Amino acid sequence: MSDARYERSRSAVHEAVCSVLVEQGLGGLTVDRLSAESGISRSTIYRNWPDMAALACEVFDELVHRDDVSAELDTAETLRSYLVDYARRLNDPTYLAVLVALIDGSSRDAAFADVHRRMFSQTRSRAGALVRRGQQVGVIDPARDVQQCVEDLVAPFLYRRLVTQTRITPAHIAALHADLLGRWAR
Amino acid sequence: MSDARYERSRSAVHEAVCSVLVEQGLGGLTVDRLSAESGISRSTIYRNWPDMAALACEVFDELVHRDDVSAELDTAETLRSYLVDYARRLNDPTYLAVLVALIDGSSRDAAFADVHRRMFSQTRSRAGALVRRGQQVGVIDPARDVQQCVEDLVAPFLYRRLVTQTRITPAHIAALHADLLGRWAR
Repeated sequence: MSDARYERSRSAVHEAVCSVLVEQGLGGLTVDRLSAESGISRSTIYRNWPDMAALACEVFDELVHRDDVSAELDTAETLRSYLVDYARRLNDPTYLAVLVALIDGSSRDAAFADVHRRMFSQTRSRAGALVRRGQQVGVIDPARDVQQCVEDLVAPFLYRRLVTQTRITPAHIAALHADLLGRWAR
Repeated sequence: MSDARYERSRSAVHEAVCSVLVEQGLGGLTVDRLSAESGISRSTIYRNWPDMAALACEVFDELVHRDDVSAELDTAETLRSYLVDYARRLNDPTYLAVLVALIDGSSRDAAFADVHRRMFSQTRSRAGALVRRGQQVGVIDPARDVQQCVEDLVAPFLYRRLVTQTRITPAHIAALHADLLGRWAR
């Protein structure tokens, strides 16, 4: 298959994964269903994406890394960008569906669990870099535990989307931003 | 069916729901599978639990309310009991599997979404009562938003179990307990 054809198939299959996860969750993710949804033949899907867990993770990876927060701003601005970006992703029903599928799958499937861990260690390392930079310039108390700060940063919006199932608003972003900077300064 | 027979069936079916959710997630929750797992006939299951969403929620309800935190202790002790109880539940693979199924199901199924909301508003009202009591006795700043305090309380452990997928240890409980009381006092 040429690069261009592969790219078209990949894009169609990735879109199909998103629709299936939004509509049916992980239980609906089969080669038959993906083939019907994407118009790509079952044999092409089997050949290129033999592992559904790896495929779901590939899609998630793409959603996560669509755009990165700039590292050029000061800590308060970098933190705001991070929160805005994170809220936008969590507010996206497709991103949320893929995230839930990943959480769901990783509780029973070692392949999912592996990629889940890898993903979240990437997300955390990005947030961790932000915190360490803040500590270097004195905006964040250097005695603060970096991993704890990362959890302070990512847990509230995730809880809101997964549990209270409300959208994250600009007011929530502003409140968490102010709260974190206040707490972390001490 | 006599009360005693109903009770036996109910208990067997509830146990089967837990096993299926741990092993296969929501996708595996069918009357056939529950019948095979519980030894209860399909017709009995159909007659008593025609709605799989309602059944999963019934099971979750039971897991959640197995034991309640006493309201007789002071704020710091009530908070500690709440955190210990909450950590114990989240550390339980069955509870976590049912919780993930509920989150998974409620993104696509209105019946799940309904009960999910009802459940979590119960959990939140229990935590909310704790916070309001703390405000009355002056341990928690009365200017603090109660719902925000509730989120401060429940989000971190949930994040840890769902995302970093590590167990909640006594050290985590002690750290969150101290952190919350420190933050809420101001």
